[in-house]
Amino acid sequence: MRCEVLAIGTELLLGQIVDTNSAWLGEQLALIGVDCHYQTKVGDNLGRIVSSLEQALDRSEAVIVCGGLGPTQDDITREAIAEVMGVELVRDEEVLGRIRAMFESRGRAMAGNNARQADVPVGATVIEQRRGTAPGLVCPVGEKVVYAVPGVPYEMEEMFERAIGPDLRERMGVRATIVSRVLRTWGDAESTLAERVGHRLEALDASGNPTLAFLASGIEGIKIRITAKAEDAEQAWKLVDAEEAELRAVLGPLVFGVDDETMEHAVLQLLQQRDWTLAVAESVTGGLVGSRLTAPAGAGDVFRGGLVSYASDVKFRLLDVPEGPVVSEEAAAAMATGVRRLVGADVGLAVTGVAGPTEQDGQPVGTVIFGLDIDGAVETHRTRLPGDRDRVRQFACISLLNLLRLRLLEWSPAGSTP
Amino acid sequence: MRCEVLAIGTELLLGQIVDTNSAWLGEQLALIGVDCHYQTKVGDNLGRIVSSLEQALDRSEAVIVCGGLGPTQDDITREAIAEVMGVELVRDEEVLGRIRAMFESRGRAMAGNNARQADVPVGATVIEQRRGTAPGLVCPVGEKVVYAVPGVPYEMEEMFERAIGPDLRERMGVRATIVSRVLRTWGDAESTLAERVGHRLEALDASGNPTLAFLASGIEGIKIRITAKAEDAEQAWKLVDAEEAELRAVLGPLVFGVDDETMEHAVLQLLQQRDWTLAVAESVTGGLVGSRLTAPAGAGDVFRGGLVSYASDVKFRLLDVPEGPVVSEEAAAAMATGVRRLVGADVGLAVTGVAGPTEQDGQPVGTVIFGLDIDGAVETHRTRLPGDRDRVRQFACISLLNLLRLRLLEWSPAGSTP
Repeated sequence: MRCEVLAIGTELLLGQIVDTNSAWLGEQLALIGVDCHYQTKVGDNLGRIVSSLEQALDRSEAVIVCGGLGPTQDDITREAIAEVMGVELVRDEEVLGRIRAMFESRGRAMAGNNARQADVPVGATVIEQRRGTAPGLVCPVGEKVVYAVPGVPYEMEEMFERAIGPDLRERMGVRATIVSRVLRTWGDAESTLAERVGHRLEALDASGNPTLAFLASGIEGIKIRITAKAEDAEQAWKLVDAEEAELRAVLGPLVFGVDDETMEHAVLQLLQQRDWTLAVAESVTGGLVGSRLTAPAGAGDVFRGGLVSYASDVKFRLLDVPEGPVVSEEAAAAMATGVRRLVGADVGLAVTGVAGPTEQDGQPVGTVIFGLDIDGAVETHRTRLPGDRDRVRQFACISLLNLLRLRLLEWSPAGSTP
Repeated sequence: MRCEVLAIGTELLLGQIVDTNSAWLGEQLALIGVDCHYQTKVGDNLGRIVSSLEQALDRSEAVIVCGGLGPTQDDITREAIAEVMGVELVRDEEVLGRIRAMFESRGRAMAGNNARQADVPVGATVIEQRRGTAPGLVCPVGEKVVYAVPGVPYEMEEMFERAIGPDLRERMGVRATIVSRVLRTWGDAESTLAERVGHRLEALDASGNPTLAFLASGIEGIKIRITAKAEDAEQAWKLVDAEEAELRAVLGPLVFGVDDETMEHAVLQLLQQRDWTLAVAESVTGGLVGSRLTAPAGAGDVFRGGLVSYASDVKFRLLDVPEGPVVSEEAAAAMATGVRRLVGADVGLAVTGVAGPTEQDGQPVGTVIFGLDIDGAVETHRTRLPGDRDRVRQFACISLLNLLRLRLLEWSPAGSTP
């Protein structure tokens, strides 16, 4: 089964918006075993949309058209599909009623041109709109099919998951359920990771189910996606669970989270389990560590606050850092202890370093020193991070969080509790 | 003149990487007056690359191919172009020498497969590689042309600006120089902004040179791009300068920067001009304000540090916030004054609020209160920001920076100087 993606909109061609929908759809199609050989962007031009659609239907069994379903005159995806189907557009009263009701529920009157969004090619079926005003469409063209979805990612994704994915799988005659889970790792390069789980890759190559895929995600580490097929969801999740256990047995603490769990989630959760609070002293990162730790809702149960001690004298005066070079182990240790005392927390975390563009205190760009004080047990770590100013700061932030995570994992709850 | 973009790479179709190159190229092509009607993504498959190339050449006078110029066996853009041209690939010794020299300059030996990057279709000319190992190619196909560039944005952009843009303009017979400048605005909706400069849009519609374009950029505000054409760069910049003056006369302090200048650049620069230092107290933003202020190199001349007072008792104890509701004008004012005193700075900035998902102190999600203390002159501002937790935090951060910017612009340097 082949399915192409056609993204509609002159603003995409002009670079005013980056088309992320095609990438998202490509990933979803691969996940359910559909080949996507071409993805095309075309502007709001009837002739060009029609010819792109016809060509895609020549090459593939299905096409997903994104965008051009809005209420204005330049939204002509409905017209283009009707032309390819060789049918008329008919206004669907039920759809119209839902659009009108959606406006009323927001206390607004429906503008006249919104009625166009209720136009449906004869023979097409509607994918009910649950997040916006435009419905999606399933449009048969001979044995083939064109799906139309809005260009708003939030609306498009919901329609794909609810209607298009299942429809494609039914057309493929797939009765199996496919599920997947992402293990998020930090600390190993992709090649090292692949070596570590080499025996699993071999075993799964033989069985073909589940499958593993590696996804590099920059400073957020490397994701390993486990995808399993089975007759029902329960069986499929069992396969995923079993493979996750196999991988975790090898990867251990390299895995910091699952699916959408971020590094800060992991750290906050570990602290909460121990009923510990956290304070952070930041120099080179300027507040990045705090901003990440407070991104999840509920961070306030654990994170009490921090000091951004950017100027050296602020470190000396408020954190009792000894006067001298501030990119040093001594400074990092004093910062961690100082902020723990200043803010009042079980754990103090600190980072000092040189983000560039020029060296500082005789230390080259990329030099970063971490400090950690858990109930008075103090340690420091020096590292040299690659990249430009922004990258050094980002890497320093996530490296510091990962360091704390590893210490919390090692810390025996039965041992000395602060 | 029409030019299509063809992005090569199976990883693009699988959604492992989002293709941002096409959007960037689309914007650049529009800027020099070239129509881009189609942008296509295709995988690392010779037959499909060749047929996509042939189709693009059927429809347009030029094609830019991005990616597939790497050293590995799945990098087959060179082979595909040679097939479309109907010629052989020949190894270019000069290119090979440059690749080898690049490896040597990094203290590494060139791997054998890197030699493939020196293969050039007969009749093509090379675009010298200055940032990577793969050269670009200019490949004539009859009267038409195929350009090949690496998929790495940093390498691709440099080659477009240096070689492809000028080549396209020469083919169009355009002798004029085109230049553009972006004015960055914050505080007005796009429609309001368009109304304000309506008289300029009308005047320019009549003359056609320079032109204006509006680019919405989320929390970073709205950009207005001025593009001018003239016989030489000096004349073109004169037109841009004149139009910038016209726009600034109407927009005044809505304009916070030009081209790549961010809001934090603007704030840091205004403070530096007055020789003032800054301290920030953050609650709801958790460190975001500090992290933005320290993103530019040289921030340390102005930004001394900040306190992330996330827990209420940290506000009471370290910032002398009076005990009581912390999402209040009283708290914001005390935070600004408190952090100014604690860190030691001319200006104290503060933000407290409710990012959600649930209300706090009886204040609904989105409530944000800013505090500002300039040398003892204290003011507060309450606002209600839209969106989810992340958006409220981001909006609060840039709104606070903009508030400070406006105050600094109003502050009479001749008046009371701290």
